[in-house]
Amino acid sequence: MKNDLILRAIKGEQVERPPVWMMRQAGRYLPEYMVLRRKYDFFTRIKTPDLACEITIQPIDIVGTDAAILFSDILTVPEAMGLEVQMVPDKGPYLPKTVKTKEDLDQLVVKDAHHEMQYVYDAIKVTKEALNDRVPLIGFAGAPFTILCYMVEGKGTKTFLESRKMLLATPELAHGLLQAITDVTIKYLQSQIEAGADLVQVFDSWSGLLDRQTFNTFCLPYIEQIAMAIDGKVPVIYFPRGNWHSLADVDKLPIDCIGLDWATPPAYARSQSDKCLQGNFDPAKLLMSPDRIEADTKEMIRAFGTHNYIANLGHGISPNVPVENAKRFVDTVKNWSN
Amino acid sequence: MKNDLILRAIKGEQVERPPVWMMRQAGRYLPEYMVLRRKYDFFTRIKTPDLACEITIQPIDIVGTDAAILFSDILTVPEAMGLEVQMVPDKGPYLPKTVKTKEDLDQLVVKDAHHEMQYVYDAIKVTKEALNDRVPLIGFAGAPFTILCYMVEGKGTKTFLESRKMLLATPELAHGLLQAITDVTIKYLQSQIEAGADLVQVFDSWSGLLDRQTFNTFCLPYIEQIAMAIDGKVPVIYFPRGNWHSLADVDKLPIDCIGLDWATPPAYARSQSDKCLQGNFDPAKLLMSPDRIEADTKEMIRAFGTHNYIANLGHGISPNVPVENAKRFVDTVKNWSN
Repeated sequence: MKNDLILRAIKGEQVERPPVWMMRQAGRYLPEYMVLRRKYDFFTRIKTPDLACEITIQPIDIVGTDAAILFSDILTVPEAMGLEVQMVPDKGPYLPKTVKTKEDLDQLVVKDAHHEMQYVYDAIKVTKEALNDRVPLIGFAGAPFTILCYMVEGKGTKTFLESRKMLLATPELAHGLLQAITDVTIKYLQSQIEAGADLVQVFDSWSGLLDRQTFNTFCLPYIEQIAMAIDGKVPVIYFPRGNWHSLADVDKLPIDCIGLDWATPPAYARSQSDKCLQGNFDPAKLLMSPDRIEADTKEMIRAFGTHNYIANLGHGISPNVPVENAKRFVDTVKNWSN
Repeated sequence: MKNDLILRAIKGEQVERPPVWMMRQAGRYLPEYMVLRRKYDFFTRIKTPDLACEITIQPIDIVGTDAAILFSDILTVPEAMGLEVQMVPDKGPYLPKTVKTKEDLDQLVVKDAHHEMQYVYDAIKVTKEALNDRVPLIGFAGAPFTILCYMVEGKGTKTFLESRKMLLATPELAHGLLQAITDVTIKYLQSQIEAGADLVQVFDSWSGLLDRQTFNTFCLPYIEQIAMAIDGKVPVIYFPRGNWHSLADVDKLPIDCIGLDWATPPAYARSQSDKCLQGNFDPAKLLMSPDRIEADTKEMIRAFGTHNYIANLGHGISPNVPVENAKRFVDTVKNWSN
């Protein structure tokens, strides 16, 4: 691997500067991506290995991040489990069929669902070859609770009330669904790793809607299963967005790195965990002037320290960020010297 | 006042049990409200004092909370400042004209805007008379940053990126707009108090989108101005949703009580502030069985302690809560004995 900085940093090795990548770095802020987006619909983009590969590598060429993350979507899993996923323009995902009862749960595909995502493993193989060891490739999946949210509601909502109702009012059903998703996710991530993923990130985009006890009951045990199943084969990053109150509990998981949202103060996070931390530049700050971006990025690195640290955003980059600004963020980290 | 429990609790007096009310307690979970909602549109409901009064008192009669909160909306202020507000069914508020530039800001009504909300003061007078001192009446306003969000975006969004861009990239413009909103809000709340409001709550629904430094720069100074202007005439509750990282800073404000969202652990909040705390039952828990609601409500009271405490939800009650469940929550607090 020509640039293995992120792999060394996540193992806790001393590095000359922090590695840097950006959540949603293959995305709409890149004009080169917009060309492909206009030409191919969402599922064509993620299900055609050559297209997914091209999109995955764009930010490596254009912005110069230290890792690539496969262009894909966390909703590949519900689809593989038998729930149709539609992408409604300007609205986001829509699942016509949802899971509300034990009968719905029993109809889901579990044992063989991971075979339905062969296109993901193929995309990883093609991308690994095209990357030619320039930088590591990150595979990923949604965390079981976050996937449950979409399976229960059928779309994004503000507070995922029906999902939280399932956890609180019918915990047995919720645990059954979470276990089914976990079983699929384990095989999904193992297959991604077999195909060549150098590390994996598990996104818990909605876990911040849960209080500490609910999060610890319905999220952590499943993340633990996933991490145990990967068993050190590649490093695991877990991103529990908004779960500041449980960082000390997350710290006990057999994972290698904790992703942080932008509202979590670095010093607080360091006080809760000795693990490698990843984050957490506010994507809105990429809309400031490049000089302000540079100043605030330096402040962030100082606050986290360069050891046990991966520089990233605290949320996905937004479509209206000028490429020049994203570059300044990345370059500031790359030009850092201790 | 026949039931002045909330006023005594917020002053730090020893009380026999915590007072209890629910955010959005006058709302869609009540069949009696739904009758009026089908008959009169949103603006008719909030701008007709007799209707606002009837809706305000419904939960006092039906659920038996220890305080009434005026049925109104935080968007009365943008409207009074010259921005039309529409309510789009199933979508929420929409403001066709927004504030993006200094020119937009200069066109806003500031000095006389509070006169445009006479219907609110009239509703308070009618309601105070109808309540006949059964329970105190809470007046309210949106916090300046949260109002800015709607003025800038024109609607609710997931991350209010344009608003946060204004703060970060054009802080002078943001401070100008926040000051204008603050000036109006001060006169608005003073007028509510003159009309009879016994205490006021300031809702910062979106401040949790800001990191500590941004929150402390763009929210706290304006809340401080508002609290100073009220100057002890009535107690002030500030609800900065999601700003767990700044509770120690919020504690320094000249306010009387801090409202907490449901994700904030009680013990953590107590460690950050000696003030009266309000909250923070997860509204999703009102969808559990009444017996589970009772058990978890008791656990919440034990965690906060009964001194310096107002029992409430950590977010507005949702439309799908059975009235019986809301009652069980309220009754559990009312039956508490130390």
